[in-house]
Amino acid sequence: MKNGKDTAVVAVSGGMDSCVTLAIAAESFTPAMLHIDYGQRTAQKELECFGKIADFYNVKLRLSTSLPHLKEIKGSSLIDTSIEIERGAPDKMRIPSTYVPFRNASILSVAVAWAEVIGAAKIFIGAVEEDSSGYPDCKSAFFEAFEKAARLGTRPGNQITIETPIIHMKKSGIVETGIRLKAPFQLTWSCYIESETACGECESCYLRQKGFHEAGIEDPIPYKRRGVFNE
Amino acid sequence: MKNGKDTAVVAVSGGMDSCVTLAIAAESFTPAMLHIDYGQRTAQKELECFGKIADFYNVKLRLSTSLPHLKEIKGSSLIDTSIEIERGAPDKMRIPSTYVPFRNASILSVAVAWAEVIGAAKIFIGAVEEDSSGYPDCKSAFFEAFEKAARLGTRPGNQITIETPIIHMKKSGIVETGIRLKAPFQLTWSCYIESETACGECESCYLRQKGFHEAGIEDPIPYKRRGVFNE
Repeated sequence: MKNGKDTAVVAVSGGMDSCVTLAIAAESFTPAMLHIDYGQRTAQKELECFGKIADFYNVKLRLSTSLPHLKEIKGSSLIDTSIEIERGAPDKMRIPSTYVPFRNASILSVAVAWAEVIGAAKIFIGAVEEDSSGYPDCKSAFFEAFEKAARLGTRPGNQITIETPIIHMKKSGIVETGIRLKAPFQLTWSCYIESETACGECESCYLRQKGFHEAGIEDPIPYKRRGVFNE
Repeated sequence: MKNGKDTAVVAVSGGMDSCVTLAIAAESFTPAMLHIDYGQRTAQKELECFGKIADFYNVKLRLSTSLPHLKEIKGSSLIDTSIEIERGAPDKMRIPSTYVPFRNASILSVAVAWAEVIGAAKIFIGAVEEDSSGYPDCKSAFFEAFEKAARLGTRPGNQITIETPIIHMKKSGIVETGIRLKAPFQLTWSCYIESETACGECESCYLRQKGFHEAGIEDPIPYKRRGVFNE
């Protein structure tokens, strides 16, 4: 008989979605936290939040690594500072410039490899499908296909599953879940542009503020501009 | 009407399998060549071969990038020099120590992201299923599942396919195909251990020598030891 919880790899960017996903995972598993620097503008700030969140949850197994190719191939305003980042609400008719090509497949490939080495049976990732920017690699159908690839492409007997516990939640539901689980929102960072004080204008700040506003809860982090929901 | 061939991303390690895969791809497509340093012992030698093969095929689009996580998480003798590499014929009953956890998923994630940015509709990869070391991420079922994930996880309308033209070939058939297509075997490198003169003893040298031996063709590269097929 085993003592203690099984290990689960949790991909944690340092944003509110991944922090709540970690809070959910930590209820039933011992989290092994993964952060990836793929050249995003706010990578250093994310890593700082990642460290504080990991300390908060007393996480021993941490992997902070990088995926240099996404910076090299360009193709996203989240990485390439010569492309402007969209402001405000997502445009449902198009994929925003912040979409990073097939990023979640790269992140999951690292997570699955690490899970195979440390013997973790689950990967948690905080993707959100509907109430989001509409990235194609945040759809549940993608995660189902990737889970199958992971089962087939690793050592026989591995039953690694991909868990996306907040994928169908609204942003307000994610905030409410985080509050219920005492997730440390004060340690998280969602802004795509700034690393000191969140801009309050980019699509990610918009979605975060919308979530807190609709949940009727005050966002504990400071903003340069409080956005449309606080005017 | 388009002038010229469509572009296809080809993952090229510098070994005989990927060189023949490139030769096949180059018949119908303009190759965009991808090499990945994931911390393998012979990465520098591979990269040297990659450059020579790219020059041979006059390839303009080249991406040489790295995946640092596979070195960080360990778990493979191909990367971790403290683990011994198996000699001789593959043991069909077990996955060898040279298996790199979910490596092909990471390589394909890079390939698909690059394909999306440069507008390539196909990825070629030189995996071999049966006449090989038995790595789980070299099975056709894995590639089929990954192709589905790639279609679902990239911009709508993308029809990126994963092509594995030599996956069901025997090693001798790969050699014969390469000879027919005038693939530059003299520029390739398969040895897992050495970077100057191939050892002739590791599993990869074994499989390569078996292929040339069964095809009745002389391998143009020098070996420290010619192996069981030449004694």
